[in-house]
Amino acid sequence: MPPKVVVLKIGHRPERDKRIDTHLALVARAFGAAGVVFDERDPFLEKKIEDVVARWGGPFWIETGVDPEFFVDKWLESGGEVIHLTQYGLPLSTCLQEIRSPPKDKLVVVGGPKVPRWLFEKSSWNVSITTQPHSEVAACAIFLHMLLGGDEFNMVFENAVLRVIPQARGKKVVKLR
Amino acid sequence: MPPKVVVLKIGHRPERDKRIDTHLALVARAFGAAGVVFDERDPFLEKKIEDVVARWGGPFWIETGVDPEFFVDKWLESGGEVIHLTQYGLPLSTCLQEIRSPPKDKLVVVGGPKVPRWLFEKSSWNVSITTQPHSEVAACAIFLHMLLGGDEFNMVFENAVLRVIPQARGKKVVKLR
Repeated sequence: MPPKVVVLKIGHRPERDKRIDTHLALVARAFGAAGVVFDERDPFLEKKIEDVVARWGGPFWIETGVDPEFFVDKWLESGGEVIHLTQYGLPLSTCLQEIRSPPKDKLVVVGGPKVPRWLFEKSSWNVSITTQPHSEVAACAIFLHMLLGGDEFNMVFENAVLRVIPQARGKKVVKLR
Repeated sequence: MPPKVVVLKIGHRPERDKRIDTHLALVARAFGAAGVVFDERDPFLEKKIEDVVARWGGPFWIETGVDPEFFVDKWLESGGEVIHLTQYGLPLSTCLQEIRSPPKDKLVVVGGPKVPRWLFEKSSWNVSITTQPHSEVAACAIFLHMLLGGDEFNMVFENAVLRVIPQARGKKVVKLR
């Protein structure tokens, strides 16, 4: 089995970050992560993502209300790597091969504007996707795209009800069952 | 001069999309676009992005309150191409070379959940970044990353006040003036 990738968001604020964190969870799913974890409990976000999985397929899971430091500690103890995406880290373009080589499960951690200091200390890698301010949604997408070699274009989701048939113009969606 | 890239967002709702569209504008800048355009007028968003440019460098411009169909028409008339990023379009992995080859200015158009029908008709390309639901922020980042060959890691911004010095642990930001 290839190594598993999970995305963890630290600093989720259910009301304020509703749309950003929906995007983040959907990106994690579409770009090949097995699941996504948020520190703050958010049943609405869980429901929204589970609805997408029911319609567009899986497997993909979401968990909210998780202690992030405990989760990171457990991940490391079980032999996985933690990759913290931050504007301040080493450019992914320079360390991608090293991150990719060990066939270890990867926990990709993104934060809002403020992340706790322990995250920089405990992470196996602090990695930047450009050293400019932008978006954890974009950072997560680019990281997964580069880690998995553009595999998002080839993914097939199981038990999907809906599937898009790509078109040069317009929309075509088929119902599979 | 290499062809210019500009990002246009259709369906900006200033209050609801505040954070998403800030992320989109910052991604456009960090990943090599010359500027970003929004249909709805939004002085707060303009101010926020101009503040980032003042601190982190440019050149990069933002314009809001632009008629999107008029903007698209003018872009096409002046010989540029319009690339509409949509879940329903042709996979970028299959048409990247064709999109890249003509040295024409590219207008990258993203929308919210609903986009007008004329956009599918008028666009030079309707392109999908996976056929799954995810995020226009991620789609824009992946498109620019693939179009410009990962150039976002090498960009230098002019007149920046702040620059990050990448670190394996912690944060290092220098003030340039």
